[in-house]
Amino acid sequence: MRERISLKHGEGMRASFELINEVFLKRISRPPLGELLDAAHIGSYVFSCDSFTVKPIFFPSSDIGKLSIFGTVNDICVSAGSPLYLSVAVIVEEGFFRRDLERIAQSIGQASRKAEVEVVGGDFKVVEKGKIDKIFISTSGIGKRITNKSPSFKHIKDKDKIILTGAIGEHGISVMLSRKKIFDFRIESDCQSLKDILIPLWKEFSSVHFMRDPTRGGIAATFNEIYLGSQRGIKIFEENIPLRKDVQAACDILGIDPYYLACEGRAVIVADKSSARDVLKFIKKKCPQAAIVGEVDSRLKGVVMETVSGGERILDFSHSFNLPRIC
Amino acid sequence: MRERISLKHGEGMRASFELINEVFLKRISRPPLGELLDAAHIGSYVFSCDSFTVKPIFFPSSDIGKLSIFGTVNDICVSAGSPLYLSVAVIVEEGFFRRDLERIAQSIGQASRKAEVEVVGGDFKVVEKGKIDKIFISTSGIGKRITNKSPSFKHIKDKDKIILTGAIGEHGISVMLSRKKIFDFRIESDCQSLKDILIPLWKEFSSVHFMRDPTRGGIAATFNEIYLGSQRGIKIFEENIPLRKDVQAACDILGIDPYYLACEGRAVIVADKSSARDVLKFIKKKCPQAAIVGEVDSRLKGVVMETVSGGERILDFSHSFNLPRIC
Repeated sequence: MRERISLKHGEGMRASFELINEVFLKRISRPPLGELLDAAHIGSYVFSCDSFTVKPIFFPSSDIGKLSIFGTVNDICVSAGSPLYLSVAVIVEEGFFRRDLERIAQSIGQASRKAEVEVVGGDFKVVEKGKIDKIFISTSGIGKRITNKSPSFKHIKDKDKIILTGAIGEHGISVMLSRKKIFDFRIESDCQSLKDILIPLWKEFSSVHFMRDPTRGGIAATFNEIYLGSQRGIKIFEENIPLRKDVQAACDILGIDPYYLACEGRAVIVADKSSARDVLKFIKKKCPQAAIVGEVDSRLKGVVMETVSGGERILDFSHSFNLPRIC
Repeated sequence: MRERISLKHGEGMRASFELINEVFLKRISRPPLGELLDAAHIGSYVFSCDSFTVKPIFFPSSDIGKLSIFGTVNDICVSAGSPLYLSVAVIVEEGFFRRDLERIAQSIGQASRKAEVEVVGGDFKVVEKGKIDKIFISTSGIGKRITNKSPSFKHIKDKDKIILTGAIGEHGISVMLSRKKIFDFRIESDCQSLKDILIPLWKEFSSVHFMRDPTRGGIAATFNEIYLGSQRGIKIFEENIPLRKDVQAACDILGIDPYYLACEGRAVIVADKSSARDVLKFIKKKCPQAAIVGEVDSRLKGVVMETVSGGERILDFSHSFNLPRIC
């Protein structure tokens, strides 16, 4: 039988990682794409792209338009770029309500003004009814480099501290609750621009070794990517991970692990242990929930979480959820 | 009744133009997006994006992968940029054959090497079966500016000559024949990189005032965009337009007008009348079919074609075909 692509190839976990390497990178790329970073460094610029297929397209506090702007803004920010210019390519289904398109365009406009980026290009296509689910958006963006150092997993050192800027899983659970309408409460997505938090951080601390925003696959995927990229294990302390009670409750009922749920307004920051306290203090001015949640431990072979109950658990990268279209 | 988006909004004709202006530009942009050029100029760089939803995904001599690379390469070239870096965002349907994905990846790799551009970023997403028609690709690209002059409709002058680099409609008819299998002959798409033709042209001739590649909506749309952008009418001489006999025959049988059919490897060049012959001679070295097909005539209010039979015909921009997904 001929092999087919399945939803797990799009979840941002090991299956995605392998498919991208085996199907695309081998045939297309030379480095720097090889390192699978959030953006490429080109001279004094940073360049990034992303597609958005989130379902539903409107969800508490956000929508696919806002998500598509802040998603690319954040990819540039974690890559030590100050986002400047974006392009937005929109594909919609025949029969889509013009009013909804206007609402999304409004949201794109607001988000780009909020993040102080200029939308300088775009594309608009319509496909026949039933050939796309409502609307997909692809954005790409250019930022100006703000450090001389190119982000790379190579900068990560043993004993580095791992900092999380805020509570996890709010975007993922917001989207899922919007889909199913199971509960009579709603959770707002954490979808936001990280520009005001991360740009000053890059400027202030040369001891920040790496950043990534934990979108698809949640913090579990990000920690595993850091492990695979740096070839250094990670120890995580579960009790330190910021997690709202209502998110935890929804996860418990749905049988979902919040560590695998997408965030769209959080960053994982790897900082030298010598200055990690200062970095945390700096972040906390804007993100009071920020916390040191773990540390790099080169002796470990993977991502190991010390649980609240005192046990140990592997945050597995091979996990599959069948939960597509979170972003 | 609430207004809905229809296929005509995606055809690159007047309805697209109006929708983009009224829905998107008003809510999002400041210039330069306002001028609706093929790419934006940012300092010494050119930045462009495009989405590809072509159906079928494989067609004679080409496929969606090659098209997505050369499409963006060409948009940068007509905008006086030398393409350097691309990003590729791929969305596929659950159940898509891995072998087909590999074939497309191969094609992306080949096309990018051919055009000497580097794919430095990408994204890969999978959506549920039935929620997308096989595969859509969005590319964006960065090029280095090759002239000090920013392309603008403003440079177009009365009596400028209009040059076409090759025969029209081959891409559009190739895709349509692949869809329907009506005839027992096939026509190859003209999908190709224009880099080797256009970059030397920009460098050699400062008298080139404008370029555009006539994709969606064909040369009719491009001529009308030039008219609307420059507010100068255009006179076209039908007998000068290069058109292959087999393309004409297929158009006649299908009842399609070749002037509205997409090209993916041709450029419309507006050049000062004083040097138009030299420009043509220069182009002909690489494109023997190139021809001067018309001229700017400020007295005209629109695009007027002098037909082979000696009559006059308006190349109407309000036309609608219901022929989606040509690119």
